[in-house]
Amino acid sequence: MKVDGKHYRSIWFNENTDTVKIIDQRWLPHEFRIVDLVSRADFAAAIRDMWVRGAPLIGATAAFAMAAEMKRDPSNNNLDEAWDELHETRPTAINLRWALTQMRDLLRPLPQEERAKAAHKRALDINDEDVECNRMIGVHGLGIIRKIAAHKKPGEVVNILTHCNAGWLATVDWGTATSPMYHAVEDGIAIHVWVDETRPRNQGALLTSWEMKSHNIPHHLIVDNAGGHLMQHGQVDLVIVGTDRTSAHGDVCNKIGTYLKALAAHDNDVPFYVALPSPSIDWTVKDGITQIPIEERDDEEVTQVQGRLPDGTIASVQISPDGTPGSNPAFDVTPRRLVTGLITERGVCEASPEGLASMFPDKVVD
Amino acid sequence: MKVDGKHYRSIWFNENTDTVKIIDQRWLPHEFRIVDLVSRADFAAAIRDMWVRGAPLIGATAAFAMAAEMKRDPSNNNLDEAWDELHETRPTAINLRWALTQMRDLLRPLPQEERAKAAHKRALDINDEDVECNRMIGVHGLGIIRKIAAHKKPGEVVNILTHCNAGWLATVDWGTATSPMYHAVEDGIAIHVWVDETRPRNQGALLTSWEMKSHNIPHHLIVDNAGGHLMQHGQVDLVIVGTDRTSAHGDVCNKIGTYLKALAAHDNDVPFYVALPSPSIDWTVKDGITQIPIEERDDEEVTQVQGRLPDGTIASVQISPDGTPGSNPAFDVTPRRLVTGLITERGVCEASPEGLASMFPDKVVD
Repeated sequence: MKVDGKHYRSIWFNENTDTVKIIDQRWLPHEFRIVDLVSRADFAAAIRDMWVRGAPLIGATAAFAMAAEMKRDPSNNNLDEAWDELHETRPTAINLRWALTQMRDLLRPLPQEERAKAAHKRALDINDEDVECNRMIGVHGLGIIRKIAAHKKPGEVVNILTHCNAGWLATVDWGTATSPMYHAVEDGIAIHVWVDETRPRNQGALLTSWEMKSHNIPHHLIVDNAGGHLMQHGQVDLVIVGTDRTSAHGDVCNKIGTYLKALAAHDNDVPFYVALPSPSIDWTVKDGITQIPIEERDDEEVTQVQGRLPDGTIASVQISPDGTPGSNPAFDVTPRRLVTGLITERGVCEASPEGLASMFPDKVVD
Repeated sequence: MKVDGKHYRSIWFNENTDTVKIIDQRWLPHEFRIVDLVSRADFAAAIRDMWVRGAPLIGATAAFAMAAEMKRDPSNNNLDEAWDELHETRPTAINLRWALTQMRDLLRPLPQEERAKAAHKRALDINDEDVECNRMIGVHGLGIIRKIAAHKKPGEVVNILTHCNAGWLATVDWGTATSPMYHAVEDGIAIHVWVDETRPRNQGALLTSWEMKSHNIPHHLIVDNAGGHLMQHGQVDLVIVGTDRTSAHGDVCNKIGTYLKALAAHDNDVPFYVALPSPSIDWTVKDGITQIPIEERDDEEVTQVQGRLPDGTIASVQISPDGTPGSNPAFDVTPRRLVTGLITERGVCEASPEGLASMFPDKVVD
């Protein structure tokens, strides 16, 4: 999407320099830095140390990494070594494994001299497929926003609340939850976005705020505590969030705190939608609350907050007494009864086994 | 309550030094500093600049300020000047006005030579009355915790979640929401407290964590997003929060985010109690959601976070891009239907007009 009027993807191949370029997200929102990824070590560091993050973008980066490796050395040995080293960078990331395996399965049967070209093409395709998937989520989500806008008086805006960053920085472009917002803006609908800070890692404050500002979408940053109050007072027309994993029955695992917003939306008759690219559906899981394991992360994320000091340096401050123990569950599960609908790349469906099966009859697992 | 094994109030009169002493809360949790308040300027700064905070403690401090002023100059002129200057420090604080007016109404009819002694006695009484009110909230709240503990297996603890700081640092002693916890500990019940961080001002992380740690009560700090997930997984037996103002019908205005926790408690059959000293009941307000005005505070509280740098200095870091606008409603209202009960100094009642009227028949306003 746009940064100061110019269009960017979060990752792209530059024909002139023959390199992959990324936005180094570690410096956002305070600095906008673009870096080249060339060596296997560059790609591994970019994924491991979160220069790039977000499941789709991690997959896209891994695909480009394999393509770069095939240019350097297309041997079977290097193919396996690259797979192993890259997979180790973030071993629990499903999209990472998926992209690496896609590349290996494509490349291994090919003669070595054809691998570089085929790998490059497939990496570009994986990137474009992600963009197209997210674009279609935006097209379908736009329909929902249009209906709400149709009931507004002249001069009134559609207020959308989102949690965490399911934006273009987590994907190759468009984002998932943000794609309907960009489509609404392109369609001429006046929107305003409430951006949840999203403690403990502040992805909303750091990244979603930056995306909104960079694309000139009106927005306000709020603390995670504020959404319920805003909904009680009619200041939220619609919630759209992303998802890390959604069960075949429609339960939505997403960043911690999503469930609280879904409860508030339900209590105030505010529609609550989830932007769901089909790779995020886990067809093997039915009951999300009991079956999806929730990662418990380092409690320093709770006791420390990172930001920029007045002199421009990035620093962490400790907000609690020395030795205070923290507890840090990273995700929660919103039961499907609180979800108004799922916005997939094929269309909008009910959050239910039947809804998902009607949208993806080819993917249902018994 | 206790700090490293020694009992403290948040404010007290020291006979030896003939001065009022307070814990200067601006330095917590990183430093424990006690300071003397002597001049009117000292007291005014302590209230205005939040060396002390919390409605009951502000009232207690103002009462001591008037007593100190009467020792210095018991004239009518000084009585009025002190009232005005102290009232200006935090003009919207109901307890401040109440305590100042209590003192003035008592003192004005008295001969000047009797004022210093009478003022000192009344200030001590106002302090003791707050302590006794909070102690009784603890006694009544203990009954609720005892019942939950009775259903626990040997070795299991009672898990209590609280939001913001309704602790002894906001009162003269015991706190309101925390008083039942201290009473449970004294009663030998094993408890564990989930302390909500409470963005944007982090009173949970800064103050409640420190109180729990100082009194050796087992606890974990969590982000405000985490409570719903913990309740879904049976890790919360009970929620107890304080209140800034509760309507005559039982709607509870408290720190922003309380409503979200009440929704989660209701959704998971977790009892949700409010510790309610009777001065916090607004008998003139019925419907809390439409009738209680919500203060919108400076958006720097949202975009900045204060804490301690590794070198020990206190600093603020900016977590969002330059120029990102924030929105900062400071309180929300939890509708009475989500409140299991109100723990007052006279006993526990239903959050309803009838419940409150049965507890305070002498105070109901038509």
